[in-house]
Amino acid sequence: MASPDADGSEAAFFVTTRVYFQDTDAGGIVYHARFLDFFERARMDWLRALGMPVGGLADQAGVLFIVRHMELDYHAPARLDDELRVSVALRELRGARLLLDQSAVRDGQLLVAARVELACVGRDDLRPTRIPPQLRDRLSHRTSPHGA
Amino acid sequence: MASPDADGSEAAFFVTTRVYFQDTDAGGIVYHARFLDFFERARMDWLRALGMPVGGLADQAGVLFIVRHMELDYHAPARLDDELRVSVALRELRGARLLLDQSAVRDGQLLVAARVELACVGRDDLRPTRIPPQLRDRLSHRTSPHGA
Amino acid sequence: MASPDADGSEAAFFVTTRVYFQDTDAGGIVYHARFLDFFERARMDWLRALGMPVGGLADQAGVLFIVRHMELDYHAPARLDDELRVSVALRELRGARLLLDQSAVRDGQLLVAARVELACVGRDDLRPTRIPPQLRDRLSHRTSPHGA
Amino acid sequence: MASPDADGSEAAFFVTTRVYFQDTDAGGIVYHARFLDFFERARMDWLRALGMPVGGLADQAGVLFIVRHMELDYHAPARLDDELRVSVALRELRGARLLLDQSAVRDGQLLVAARVELACVGRDDLRPTRIPPQLRDRLSHRTSPHGA
Repeated sequence: MASPDADGSEAAFFVTTRVYFQDTDAGGIVYHARFLDFFERARMDWLRALGMPVGGLADQAGVLFIVRHMELDYHAPARLDDELRVSVALRELRGARLLLDQSAVRDGQLLVAARVELACVGRDDLRPTRIPPQLRDRLSHRTSPHGA
Repeated sequence: MASPDADGSEAAFFVTTRVYFQDTDAGGIVYHARFLDFFERARMDWLRALGMPVGGLADQAGVLFIVRHMELDYHAPARLDDELRVSVALRELRGARLLLDQSAVRDGQLLVAARVELACVGRDDLRPTRIPPQLRDRLSHRTSPHGA
Repeated sequence: MASPDADGSEAAFFVTTRVYFQDTDAGGIVYHARFLDFFERARMDWLRALGMPVGGLADQAGVLFIVRHMELDYHAPARLDDELRVSVALRELRGARLLLDQSAVRDGQLLVAARVELACVGRDDLRPTRIPPQLRDRLSHRTSPHGA
Repeated sequence: MASPDADGSEAAFFVTTRVYFQDTDAGGIVYHARFLDFFERARMDWLRALGMPVGGLADQAGVLFIVRHMELDYHAPARLDDELRVSVALRELRGARLLLDQSAVRDGQLLVAARVELACVGRDDLRPTRIPPQLRDRLSHRTSPHGA
């Protein structure tokens, strides 16, 4: 699911998702917090595609990734039956933290953009801990050369 | 929150909850699965009112209650800003199982009725286990004399 | 996605879905109400596969399907990262109502089974109304010969 | 629910909410997106307390408030049975936009802080529109004198 973009950089990982009734609200559009669910699914699928499903990270490496900071820009609404392309791109690997860019796009139109900072923490104490070396190695090849 | 009903039986425990955008869908009404959330909140508040908050049950007694069976009748829709009265009544205590009647009512009109069967299970193995004696004692005084 | 089952009957329509953090709760398993979301997605995908996406049904035919009755049996829990096969089978078409059998299965093991009764209602007044003839025609070929 | 803070400024509006199983995930803590639900409930209760319930705003004034931008800082996790104090403070009123500060606090400890930008939009076209004068009047008395 990764291919060169028009600008020559490696495209973000993405998944497609549909909008169901459960995602909408009485305003007739997708409820704003549901985009966080779409983004979380994309992050988990991305880690799985890197060979590190979160269940395995928790059980074998004893770590979780938790959200520390998030910035969201809602540009346009999504509606019932829309098909969204939800992406994840690693912007930076910083100690026990991952900085990601995520977006939800419909037919080439950016609907929601997010900057997400994840912290790697111990499963039991939730204290910051080192990203498992195997995952770190795989991730370090995926940051963009210009750090963005 | 318990008082005699018109028929002289003890009224169910209930909590009141408001309908927010997050509870609705693009049909303009409360999304059907959200009533299960309302019912779960009422059950947890009921156990807390009995002196057994679920966190304590898990940490001290090592048990959880999980849903085994549920029947739901949707009589009328709920809408944004509605105030709902969500009730819990213990119908029967049967081994490791609790049978509950729940409902969501607005201004005296029944919107959704549910029959819920909960099983008491071990927190770690999720296998059926005895209801902690202290909770059982408190519950046994609350089943209706005619078993419903 | 429809193929003969071992017993020779036409298999149910199904979709596969993954279990994410958002689907689980602090008990370590999928939160019970999330199965209703999985079932709703499967129903919407099934209607879309029949050529009748719900958005179109609402906009063009002016109808919605709402849940009137549901029975759920929870046989075994689902966990983080599980891949579930979520099915829909039409059991009966009765006036303005659809009776469906749904299930969530992991590796051949039945986790949750549901009987769902949907009512076709007018989008604006939510009153029972006839199922659009085009959808009725397509559905009538899909009920099982023995009505179950 | 508004009272002077230690610093003499008017305290934020707040509501209290409990953490239920539905709010947690398999990490044993509140799922990050659920805080957006807590914040949304607090905003709707705040508008209702100002005499402008969102249902009324939609039906009578024909407007909705939608989230345009949001920044979230997760400082510490919340857990099952926690009681949270969820606040709303109006930071600025700017054209068709409201800038709010929100927080979720447990026993005086800040768990999550959010800056939220809402846009007032037409219910039907979702285009930016003026905040209804009556609401604007009530809000203009509530911005902090130092713009924060």
